[in-house]
Amino acid sequence: MRRWNGWGDDQFALELPAEGQQFLADRIGEATPLADATLESVCAQVPDSRLAPHPLIDTGAEIRVRHARGQSLCDWLAMRSGHFGVFPDGVALPETSEDVRTLLAYAQANDVKVIPYGGGTSVAGHITPLADARPVLTVSLAAMNRLIDIDTDSQIATFGAGTPGPLVESQLRAEGYTLGHFPQSFELSTIGGWVASRSSGQQSLRYGRIEQLYAGGRIETLRGSLDIPTIPASSAGPDVREMVLGSEGRIGIITEVKVRVTRLPEQESFHVVFFPTWAQARDAARELVQNRLQLSMLRLSNAVETETQLALAGHPGQIRLLEKFLAFRGAGDKKCMMTFGVTGTRHQCRHALSEARKHCSAYDGVYTGKYLGAKWAEKRFTMPYLREALWQMGYAVDTLETATDWDNVDALLGKIEDNLRQGLTDDGERLHVFTHLSHFYGQGCSIYTSYVFRTADNYEDTLARWQRLKQSTSRIIVENGGTISHQHGVGKDHAPFLEVEKGELGMAAISGLCQIFDPEGRLNPGTLIQPINK
Amino acid sequence: MRRWNGWGDDQFALELPAEGQQFLADRIGEATPLADATLESVCAQVPDSRLAPHPLIDTGAEIRVRHARGQSLCDWLAMRSGHFGVFPDGVALPETSEDVRTLLAYAQANDVKVIPYGGGTSVAGHITPLADARPVLTVSLAAMNRLIDIDTDSQIATFGAGTPGPLVESQLRAEGYTLGHFPQSFELSTIGGWVASRSSGQQSLRYGRIEQLYAGGRIETLRGSLDIPTIPASSAGPDVREMVLGSEGRIGIITEVKVRVTRLPEQESFHVVFFPTWAQARDAARELVQNRLQLSMLRLSNAVETETQLALAGHPGQIRLLEKFLAFRGAGDKKCMMTFGVTGTRHQCRHALSEARKHCSAYDGVYTGKYLGAKWAEKRFTMPYLREALWQMGYAVDTLETATDWDNVDALLGKIEDNLRQGLTDDGERLHVFTHLSHFYGQGCSIYTSYVFRTADNYEDTLARWQRLKQSTSRIIVENGGTISHQHGVGKDHAPFLEVEKGELGMAAISGLCQIFDPEGRLNPGTLIQPINK
Repeated sequence: MRRWNGWGDDQFALELPAEGQQFLADRIGEATPLADATLESVCAQVPDSRLAPHPLIDTGAEIRVRHARGQSLCDWLAMRSGHFGVFPDGVALPETSEDVRTLLAYAQANDVKVIPYGGGTSVAGHITPLADARPVLTVSLAAMNRLIDIDTDSQIATFGAGTPGPLVESQLRAEGYTLGHFPQSFELSTIGGWVASRSSGQQSLRYGRIEQLYAGGRIETLRGSLDIPTIPASSAGPDVREMVLGSEGRIGIITEVKVRVTRLPEQESFHVVFFPTWAQARDAARELVQNRLQLSMLRLSNAVETETQLALAGHPGQIRLLEKFLAFRGAGDKKCMMTFGVTGTRHQCRHALSEARKHCSAYDGVYTGKYLGAKWAEKRFTMPYLREALWQMGYAVDTLETATDWDNVDALLGKIEDNLRQGLTDDGERLHVFTHLSHFYGQGCSIYTSYVFRTADNYEDTLARWQRLKQSTSRIIVENGGTISHQHGVGKDHAPFLEVEKGELGMAAISGLCQIFDPEGRLNPGTLIQPINK
Repeated sequence: MRRWNGWGDDQFALELPAEGQQFLADRIGEATPLADATLESVCAQVPDSRLAPHPLIDTGAEIRVRHARGQSLCDWLAMRSGHFGVFPDGVALPETSEDVRTLLAYAQANDVKVIPYGGGTSVAGHITPLADARPVLTVSLAAMNRLIDIDTDSQIATFGAGTPGPLVESQLRAEGYTLGHFPQSFELSTIGGWVASRSSGQQSLRYGRIEQLYAGGRIETLRGSLDIPTIPASSAGPDVREMVLGSEGRIGIITEVKVRVTRLPEQESFHVVFFPTWAQARDAARELVQNRLQLSMLRLSNAVETETQLALAGHPGQIRLLEKFLAFRGAGDKKCMMTFGVTGTRHQCRHALSEARKHCSAYDGVYTGKYLGAKWAEKRFTMPYLREALWQMGYAVDTLETATDWDNVDALLGKIEDNLRQGLTDDGERLHVFTHLSHFYGQGCSIYTSYVFRTADNYEDTLARWQRLKQSTSRIIVENGGTISHQHGVGKDHAPFLEVEKGELGMAAISGLCQIFDPEGRLNPGTLIQPINK
């Protein structure tokens, strides 16, 4: 069953090997875990619902607990401590667009706020209810999880918006197709959530971001149904699709999503290359993408991430041998690991692989074959489970991500890592901080930084540590040419930083757009746009 | 010098060979040209300006004539007949963003309407002033035509918005770069106009549409300057870039455009393949793009366009030999011509060409090498000059374009061509109608139809003929799953058809967005959104 207070299915746990534990203890010290609250104790806190009864709405305590929080570290601390603060007054599970229209009419008639809920995987507070004088209804799209139609001529598939990643791919696979959208949250996040938050998947280099995959569909709004027809491309004015993408529930509830799909590839494989230095690795990656090599995935770990991944992989004997081999070939202590994928026809894959290898060699890259790439592919969605393993050892882990132009990548990466590394010096605490680049563009790339720190003696101080790290680094990102999010969205956590990026007029346009559809601010208040009185 | 009443430079004329004249006469009859008005006679009609004098504004008659119309057939008839109807009250040529702010403040203070003007190449009435109780000022960006900055790490170039195609490419070429945006209007249209109207170029398959190339920049609005920072990709809410793209002057005046550029390719070549039937040609083209072959350009003429192009090419002896060869190889009377381009490194081009040839062979395509492809490349921007040659023979020519999903391409193409072919039956007139597909996507493609008809005895009846053809076919497009424009934009000519495509709520979003920036409707009224009292 799905964990009520953490990531994923409770039948699956990721073990941290002993070498990994030692690696962390050496770097930031041994730690003591905090005690977890029980589901029963949290359910007991849930107040009476303020919602007028409705057959589509469940006001039971447990379902309200299970829909109260996402997966940010702040959510995690709330769930583990049991200090939720606010719960939705009820959860609805509509089965059709008509049900959603009924619920919106109910919300309008009864002066209720509405939070759309996909997979509950937000790491930016998208679905967290704020304290409100009016009741709050969470609308989960979980029951709308089917492939409704596929047009194989036009390669357009229509899904219920609540379809999670594995059901998207399995239903398409049965027809010989793939969407190719693989965010790390793939196991739980939904196709509607991807659209609402402008998601990006690990193979965006081949398949595109959700902006490129989203072809149209249906959004239920307080002003009626918005149907966006599928058209391959158009110059007919501003694109309404682009107003829905990233709207984070503020203009309506996405109920049907039409996406551009691709025939299953003949072949796919992932490959790993190690470079002696960061500068060589980064230049090689930039050139790969600026020269338009037909790769399907590209990821580049900096030296600390490379070291961390090798330490946490287990199998220390094998890793030692690998490192000897790499050092002999010139990739020693400062080595950086690049993983790339080739996908397509046999001929395309052969050509792309040969080009990529030749290219990496020119930057002293040491090609190590498919083995480590296959390991990456095998574990590509399991990283979020690591948080559970670390938590049980007394460590908190979080990630921050942005994107910026190539001329700014190193500078911004340095500022983010430095700020995090020194972020808890006042508490006498060290952080373990490491970064990879992914989602490569001719113009720049995303920067994805992970950080691990010891929890404090109690939840309040642990939360305060996280808040200091998150706030100060978010400000550094937007004040230094980065976007506040390349793939996680804005939610409530990033909303205070959005205006630096968009400017006053840009914010006026975004909030004006939301007001066109929702003049009373009934939909997902506090998300994307900060409340005015804040 | 630039023609005041037609396309391009008056030193360049395209000759229609004798065989081409005979070809048209056989199909739609011989024709008699209408008499052209003189520039002097038109200047004499220009009324006094209603604008308060301003040092940045020129109210001379000739400059107002030269900025009164675009290049739609309706504009053409106005310019040739001298029946312009409305002229702008003055033309400003700002040199800086500050000048533009000054002009907007002047417009606000003096209750003046403002039309932004790029290259004056609109074929949808974007820049045509409507009769208005208030004075109308046309703001030409022609003096802002320079490369301001290039960041070669991030491959971002900044241009003045009035930079026309040839100056974009020549200034980039000097740095070793290309934008790769080549609409047919390339010689005259501007980078700001491309953004404002969501343009698409002939090599969009490699370089993307202007949506993919536009990285940000500056727009001067009545509420102040909107600066969009360059970020490679972001999930931080709805994309402000996408609100500017296609805004057609309704939210502000684009003054600086930042674009994503590419290093000049090592190689580029264009190739021609003939297919025996439309069905084979269309399937081959669809498969090429759905299998993600790395082509830089793809265009597929139907049988009538193929026949027309060969007839109008001149050199009848050589063409006869080619046709004999093709017929021998199975591509006879119903043959369809595909042109494709390969661009990139030597290795990429070799690989793409080999794959494409293999692929086309599987659909009985007859590969004819690079000669016809080179001819296409040589003449790629001269087609608009053909209108002048035809006009002088008494023929009017216009084009209609749309895009639709693959499952609808044949049906919509058939409806468009049928409607045009029968459109003047009541007048006893035949039309010559032909089509190509271009701008291919996995989901569908654009449909680009040309039609030639004889002018009537007078301008009024000729205009009425065009209006009947344009109106009825535009309605057919939007009522049958096509976009009202894939690459020409909305302007005033397409505005009445936009709501069918966008829906009531989509239109509310677009017009609401414009109102956020321009509540009084001062900017380019009638364009994109129909006036309410219409």
